[in-house]
Amino acid sequence: MSKLVIVGTVAFDAIETPFGKTDKILGGAATFIGLAASHFDIDAAAVSVVGGDFPQKYLDLLSNRNIDISGIEIVKEGKTFFWSGRYHNDMNSRDTLVTELNTLADFKPVVPENYRDAEIVMLGNLHPNVQSSVLDQMVNKPKLVILDTMNFWMDIALDDLHNVMKRVDVITINDEEARQLTGEYSLVVAARKIHTMGPKYVVIKKGEHGALLFYNDDVFYAPALPLEEVFDPTGAGDTFAGGFAGYIAKTGDTSFDNMKNAVIFGSTLASFCVEKFGTERMETLKNEEVHKRLLQFKQLTQFDIKLA
Amino acid sequence: MSKLVIVGTVAFDAIETPFGKTDKILGGAATFIGLAASHFDIDAAAVSVVGGDFPQKYLDLLSNRNIDISGIEIVKEGKTFFWSGRYHNDMNSRDTLVTELNTLADFKPVVPENYRDAEIVMLGNLHPNVQSSVLDQMVNKPKLVILDTMNFWMDIALDDLHNVMKRVDVITINDEEARQLTGEYSLVVAARKIHTMGPKYVVIKKGEHGALLFYNDDVFYAPALPLEEVFDPTGAGDTFAGGFAGYIAKTGDTSFDNMKNAVIFGSTLASFCVEKFGTERMETLKNEEVHKRLLQFKQLTQFDIKLA
Repeated sequence: MSKLVIVGTVAFDAIETPFGKTDKILGGAATFIGLAASHFDIDAAAVSVVGGDFPQKYLDLLSNRNIDISGIEIVKEGKTFFWSGRYHNDMNSRDTLVTELNTLADFKPVVPENYRDAEIVMLGNLHPNVQSSVLDQMVNKPKLVILDTMNFWMDIALDDLHNVMKRVDVITINDEEARQLTGEYSLVVAARKIHTMGPKYVVIKKGEHGALLFYNDDVFYAPALPLEEVFDPTGAGDTFAGGFAGYIAKTGDTSFDNMKNAVIFGSTLASFCVEKFGTERMETLKNEEVHKRLLQFKQLTQFDIKLA
Repeated sequence: MSKLVIVGTVAFDAIETPFGKTDKILGGAATFIGLAASHFDIDAAAVSVVGGDFPQKYLDLLSNRNIDISGIEIVKEGKTFFWSGRYHNDMNSRDTLVTELNTLADFKPVVPENYRDAEIVMLGNLHPNVQSSVLDQMVNKPKLVILDTMNFWMDIALDDLHNVMKRVDVITINDEEARQLTGEYSLVVAARKIHTMGPKYVVIKKGEHGALLFYNDDVFYAPALPLEEVFDPTGAGDTFAGGFAGYIAKTGDTSFDNMKNAVIFGSTLASFCVEKFGTERMETLKNEEVHKRLLQFKQLTQFDIKLA
């Protein structure tokens, strides 16, 4: 078992989908990553920042799930990061309605002393320099560093993104972002280019079409579980990343074969996340439910072909 | 081993993609289905029609592959069906430039006498009434009837399509067509509706995102092999269907578990088809190459997760 450091936003979200809309609810990358990683009975710490307006009950939600929250700074006079978005009818695209950085604007993450030797580091979507500053604090080179990012940083901080990419082992990115980052339409070619930018492992997320894991010339494809309806996609990518990182931390095995399992675990957890608004489904999700759905993933993908 | 009847067009295609364009080359659903099914060492017959302008060498191509061509009618004074299309840059959509029905307009398929007891019938994309007329000629109820169709028939012959659908076991259809046929966005819900229209098995093709096989509440997902480039998608869906039907005919096993294998075989063959223009790649494809790529499909999808 390895220690896991999770860095990312802890935030308020307000979400509109064709199924309804929410007021300000719990959101943020580190929140979803933490809730997902909490299924693995590991030592995990969240590093983030919130304002004085952030309810204690949301922090309790994480600590009750055994996530160490000593690295979540509370800026009493500040306000919590707030994002609001509206999904289109196909649920594959969305418009951002509001982004209030608030305390996130000056966020200087501080990794708790007892987590600076963590073997696994999950860098949730943040400014690349903030992500880099976390790696600077680690006393040893971690066994595995996983980076999530988005097109926004490619637009405004590409050089910084390239700098942090050189220091990570795994990148998780969606298909359109992979294309933007490389200028290549083919995801196979895009992944190969991303390898040369640093990450040995490239995970390309394709939403309802699943996720691809590339490692040199090897590739693994985890489908998304076909669902009757996707209620709210918010946090699905972070939940995937949290499941991936949590499984690696639990097993301590960073081989390509074990990463396949990590991708399946991530996909499984993400399939729950989208069933309800925000963190609602993840707050009550039980391990038995996860295991049952893992068996569905096996049935969904496994075959036993006989070659003549 | 079962006998396989293949019904569909044998045609001329002219294709434009971002990689180049062709003159009139060999095309047609029955052609691609036949070339794919020829990898299974089965008794298979193609039922179609061509004009006097159709080169003997194209017919030889099929018969050299052990496809019985006695059911391909040659209308000496007529011209062969011709289709021309241009693919967009993303290769996922295309415009039809020319459709000349020619001899296809009056096509009355005649199943060869010695194939009227065939166990497996593959109805390639044609007018639903033409597809029905083939089923009328079978002396026994076939063990498995597979139907391919397209949005065009939903637009102009929906009632006829519903009639033939009631008589088939498997339908292959792409995601947009499944949505058009049912009015449902979710493919899970769409598949359930299609079940009620007749087919017990519903295969939804998603192009570069693979294919889904639905059977009651069970679902199987075969990814498409991630490729560096798709050179020409023409015939990929028919090649998939031919691989599916050929594998079922070869094994004589119509269980859901074996259909998973058939889907994988279909996907494997389709992954070759798109590598060159038209039938070019399929004309020279060797069984050893197919088997090698099947192993790639295994590596692409198989995992061995340990539950705690």
